[in-house]
Amino acid sequence: MEYYSKQISNLIGELSNLPGIGSKSAQRLAFYLLNRPKEEVDRLASVLTEARQNVHYCKECYTLTDQEICPICANEKRDRKKIMVVEDTRDLAAYEKTGKYEGLYHVLHGAISPMQGIGPGDIKLKELLQRLQKEDVDEVIIATNSSLEGETTAMYISKLIKPTGIKVSRIASGVPVGGDLENIDEVTLLRALEGRTEL
Amino acid sequence: MEYYSKQISNLIGELSNLPGIGSKSAQRLAFYLLNRPKEEVDRLASVLTEARQNVHYCKECYTLTDQEICPICANEKRDRKKIMVVEDTRDLAAYEKTGKYEGLYHVLHGAISPMQGIGPGDIKLKELLQRLQKEDVDEVIIATNSSLEGETTAMYISKLIKPTGIKVSRIASGVPVGGDLENIDEVTLLRALEGRTEL
Repeated sequence: MEYYSKQISNLIGELSNLPGIGSKSAQRLAFYLLNRPKEEVDRLASVLTEARQNVHYCKECYTLTDQEICPICANEKRDRKKIMVVEDTRDLAAYEKTGKYEGLYHVLHGAISPMQGIGPGDIKLKELLQRLQKEDVDEVIIATNSSLEGETTAMYISKLIKPTGIKVSRIASGVPVGGDLENIDEVTLLRALEGRTEL
Repeated sequence: MEYYSKQISNLIGELSNLPGIGSKSAQRLAFYLLNRPKEEVDRLASVLTEARQNVHYCKECYTLTDQEICPICANEKRDRKKIMVVEDTRDLAAYEKTGKYEGLYHVLHGAISPMQGIGPGDIKLKELLQRLQKEDVDEVIIATNSSLEGETTAMYISKLIKPTGIKVSRIASGVPVGGDLENIDEVTLLRALEGRTEL
């Protein structure tokens, strides 16, 4: 890095701290940016600062939003009796893209992972239970990832909620649509078998 | 993108304009940044703005630098009689990393490419010729890339400089050190054969 003058090295250093950006990509990005018009780079910098400044958790579902209440929680047409629990805002967006889910969400911001020292107190779980006490909810749909952490979290939440009498469900695991059986791992194949439905 | 609130969408949009960053990576980066401490994001934004503001071409060799004259041109220990011509600042850094080249550089900021409409007037070639007139240079080492554009540029520069009597050389093409012959393309193998030296 001593081959570049200080401000260039600093820029490369900052960029290479970003996830998935190695030293080569950071250099490529830095020189790309140094060659762009000044206004364009200033705009990127200000969008970055403003987003970090103004984006926070929705007071109700804890998704990331720049408003006090996110557009989904604020939408009166949504079915307020269903809450889908997801690990993060990107998972919420994935379900929103289907356009078929009409209920609300709850974003945990992580999953329980004893290996990484993340316990139930480190995710927005207490906040979910508080919501369920205050609001009239029929069903909690657990849509955490199909990983060890996601499954652990799903089991944990299900055990906490079941005694309250609220219905708890889990999205199905199985062969992805269009998936070729020979390329699918054994655990998924067994899950698909266990979860088979009568035709 | 309509699944995210406006400032988040803007951030994802800005990030996905960067080269090599697709829509998925832009989302991953955006949420990573939104979850980092505010000071860290502000620092990235200000390093970006400042670098773009203050980095410009070195008055002598046209590399990118935040000083008037870059550290290499300002270094009195460098051999001022040799100039290595490279396409961009990253290529200069690649040779500096070897620690073995003691001469100066000249950065073209591109290569002649009729396909992309880049002619001799679009790169810092006139500036190279002006340098050669003003300064006492023994040898110009052409280290443009070994691509079609790099070779075209090398030939063009060589034809311009030869009549002045200054020695013009081209870095060698051949099999990379540690390279396995069976994995090397035919053009490189032929170049390596043509450029063979007696042992």
